[in-house]
Formats: sequence, structure tokens, C-alpha cells
Amino acid sequence: MFKKILYPTDFSDVAKSALDFVKQLKDAGAEEVVVLHIIDKSSLDALAMYTSKDFLQIEKDWEASAASQMSSIEDELKEAGFEVKVRIEKEIPFIGILKVEEEEDVSAIVIGSHGVSNVQEMFLGSVSEKVIRKAKKPVLVVKR
Amino acid sequence: MFKKILYPTDFSDVAKSALDFVKQLKDAGAEEVVVLHIIDKSSLDALAMYTSKDFLQIEKDWEASAASQMSSIEDELKEAGFEVKVRIEKEIPFIGILKVEEEEDVSAIVIGSHGVSNVQEMFLGSVSEKVIRKAKKPVLVVKR
Repeated sequence: MFKKILYPTDFSDVAKSALDFVKQLKDAGAEEVVVLHIIDKSSLDALAMYTSKDFLQIEKDWEASAASQMSSIEDELKEAGFEVKVRIEKEIPFIGILKVEEEEDVSAIVIGSHGVSNVQEMFLGSVSEKVIRKAKKPVLVVKR
Repeated sequence: MFKKILYPTDFSDVAKSALDFVKQLKDAGAEEVVVLHIIDKSSLDALAMYTSKDFLQIEKDWEASAASQMSSIEDELKEAGFEVKVRIEKEIPFIGILKVEEEEDVSAIVIGSHGVSNVQEMFLGSVSEKVIRKAKKPVLVVKR
């Protein structure tokens, strides 16, 4: 039931707490973890539109920083005995998470939730709320 | 992290699926389960207002039916090796769940989610969405 876990992370503190729960699921049968980071497409678009700096360089720096953080999560999970797959995608976050849920045919999702942080989220829901609403598989929501 | 689980149930199929996940958490350290059924206060009030039948009798039958279903869940969990506490409360469902989360000082909540089923829920969220939003502890949401 928890064999293959999808763990989306935005590298926030609450995402780090969620990682502890991923590890805890090892004893409940978790064997493989897909670690997913989504580079928010709309933030990239906004950056391209409003920045005066070299956009392509910024995008590259962003990707390099994501890759390095992902690699340390990968090490941590491998040390804990998991098989690990790392994915970095450019997407609207909740859509990217749901796509990877399907593509990787995971057993469950473990995600951190910041809680509702602004008016738009009050009405439309945060990333985690959208994932919970639309995901097909069980979602473990770890709170702030 | 999963030592004491709160498992709210409305006896629906999706709540029954959630029970399988509760059992699965035994190997991740779950020892005790608080099984909670909320008799929806507003449904009771509506019943009192609109029914021509003997209201107190209906309420008693409702409670007896809940108690018998709870007792078979209790047996099932005890057989699986858990320490079990059973609670039946009359409340607004999500408020009752959050109260018991606090009172019992649980480590996590495992709850079934029907998904959004009507217009009111589209705007206000289902019971499980309200629980996820307001709960302090991690919530494992099992989908339909």
C-alpha cells in the first residue's frame, strides 16, 4: 500500500518534515521513492517578462540549485535504504505532481502543507489541497 | 510518528478502505487506534424538526446501529493487534474530529475522502478537506 512513494518537495521546512514521514513508511513496506521538484512555470514566465537580467542564466542557476538540493535528498533516502528516482519538471505545480503520480504509478503521495497563506488560496486552495482533491492515490499531508 | 492513530468513520466504503491503511501502519509503529464516529448534530436537529415519528426512538436506534458497527471495527482492530478506544460523539462532523484530535493527543489522522459531492462542498470543502485544513497532526487521506 505504501510500496512506491511520490514525495514532491519545494525545499521548504514543511517539505523537510514530510521527508521524515516518508522514511518512517519504510517499515510499512515503502521501497521506492520518487522525489519530485517542480519549477513553477508561471514564476519562470513572470521572471522572463519582468526581469532585466539575463533570463536564461537565471533559469540555469535555478535548475542547478534545484539539482543540488535534490541530490542531497537522494543521498539521504538511499542511506535510509530506499530505491530513489529524482525528477525535476517545469510545470504548474499541482498539475506536475498529478502527472507524475500517473506516470510513475505510485502507491501513495507524501506532501507537506503550509496551510492556506493568502486570499487566492482561501478560494482556490493551496498546491497541496489541489493535489489532495485530484489525486487518485492516498495522500499523507504533513502540516506545518 | 504514527503511534496513536485517530480513525474517524462514517461507515462508508471509503472509510472502510481507510481502515486497511490504518492496519498497514502497524509496521510503521502504530500501537493504538481511536475509532471515532460522529452522529451529525445538524442531521439530528433536522430529524427532530421534520419527522412525524417518535424522535427519541429514532435517535436511540441510530445510536444503537452506530454502536454495533463500531464494535465490529473494534474487534477487527484488536485482532490486528492494536489497542483500541471507541468514541461516538454528537457534533458537527469536522469539529468533532478536531476536538478528539486534541483531546486524545493523537499522532496522526487516517480519513477517507469521498471527494467533493455537491455545490456547497465545492465552496466550503467536504468534511475531510476541513479536517485536513485545520488539523495539527499529519492526515492520511484515502481516496474513493
